[in-house]
Amino acid sequence: MIEAALYLIPVQLSDVELTTILPTINTHIVRDIKHFIVENVRSARRFLKKCDRNIDIDSLTFYELNRHTKESEIPSMLSPLINGEPVGVISEAGCPAVADPGADVVAIAQSKGLKVKPLVGPSSILMGLMGSGFNGQSFAFLGYLPIDSTERARKFKEMERRIMHEDQTQIFIETPYRNNALAAELCKIMPQHIKLCIATDITGEKESIVTRGVKQWQGKLPELHKVPTIFLLYK
Amino acid sequence: MIEAALYLIPVQLSDVELTTILPTINTHIVRDIKHFIVENVRSARRFLKKCDRNIDIDSLTFYELNRHTKESEIPSMLSPLINGEPVGVISEAGCPAVADPGADVVAIAQSKGLKVKPLVGPSSILMGLMGSGFNGQSFAFLGYLPIDSTERARKFKEMERRIMHEDQTQIFIETPYRNNALAAELCKIMPQHIKLCIATDITGEKESIVTRGVKQWQGKLPELHKVPTIFLLYK
Repeated sequence: MIEAALYLIPVQLSDVELTTILPTINTHIVRDIKHFIVENVRSARRFLKKCDRNIDIDSLTFYELNRHTKESEIPSMLSPLINGEPVGVISEAGCPAVADPGADVVAIAQSKGLKVKPLVGPSSILMGLMGSGFNGQSFAFLGYLPIDSTERARKFKEMERRIMHEDQTQIFIETPYRNNALAAELCKIMPQHIKLCIATDITGEKESIVTRGVKQWQGKLPELHKVPTIFLLYK
Repeated sequence: MIEAALYLIPVQLSDVELTTILPTINTHIVRDIKHFIVENVRSARRFLKKCDRNIDIDSLTFYELNRHTKESEIPSMLSPLINGEPVGVISEAGCPAVADPGADVVAIAQSKGLKVKPLVGPSSILMGLMGSGFNGQSFAFLGYLPIDSTERARKFKEMERRIMHEDQTQIFIETPYRNNALAAELCKIMPQHIKLCIATDITGEKESIVTRGVKQWQGKLPELHKVPTIFLLYK
């Protein structure tokens, strides 16, 4: 039996065999957990079935944690752990608590002195950074860029400044149906000494991680509509 | 046979079974590679033997890439890949090209239009972030802090500003024999609304990821001397 802790369980980014993206111990740990805090119950069930098709899903308890969850509902999700039982956190894709709502429940676990155990798994941010060739000794992930055009322009300027003056790689994402528009915008707005890495479908069949100068990309941008994509900028 | 690409191969952070921290496919991929760009030949050989004890180490070619390597020597390390053979990159711990010298060779591969393929593995930066409960939608890794006291004080101020005004988690490391001094310094310098997460020996037997207010840590800091540690700050 595994020890009582809040296990942060990464899931696949794309539809691949789990052995290609998760250590085998993760599936053993999952089998020992009866309580799960999940971003989406349906995708979590599907993931658990993929870990072990003999798993008895109906014997498990799921607590949904996403932008619809009230903050006041979160602490009670940790009751099983307080009573000595392991609890798992599963997000929709990638690593819980990184670019997703899981961080709230981890913060509460920390404030209560509960043990937290992250497991190894795929992160498109980290894998995009590895593959970009950009500075991995200093980098920032900014999440989504602002939509408001004034704020957005200011953000682009600030990113450029941090690349040039702090040697810091800038990493960000966009709502998937606006990926094409963002890529075109970056090529237009960024000066020619800036490089853009477009990392799409990481771990998937059509994975592509390509770094080019912003001006080299012009007219040669790949089709990114609704494809999971990470954007990285550096010099 | 695997396709010709520059494979970025993560290694263990601590002395554990590889099945606990790497997907099994990684060891299959490793067996198909004859050319490796490595931070340290000895630790790379040890890792490869651990992947597969039947591996014929003497049939492999190793190119050393670390701070002693001249920049002019790097491009030739990619010759096998240009000739259609897969090449692996292995650093001393964790993920190649993140907080280590591998990024240079990835940048050259990208500039030559060669295919780059990051594999999944443990990253203490990412796992520390997951376990901290801090903001995972906006975070920065800063590498080592400046040693000069004026620059260092400025860096602390800047970190505090980015936490408070940009909601950005700040992540950094210290030379392992100065970990204790840094932890004490943070507790003393940072205002009480700042939280510090100390993540030590990640994936190892003594793994501990604990978040407390900086003032709560005072007088209760763990022994960090020469223990691999990631420091994270947020509010």
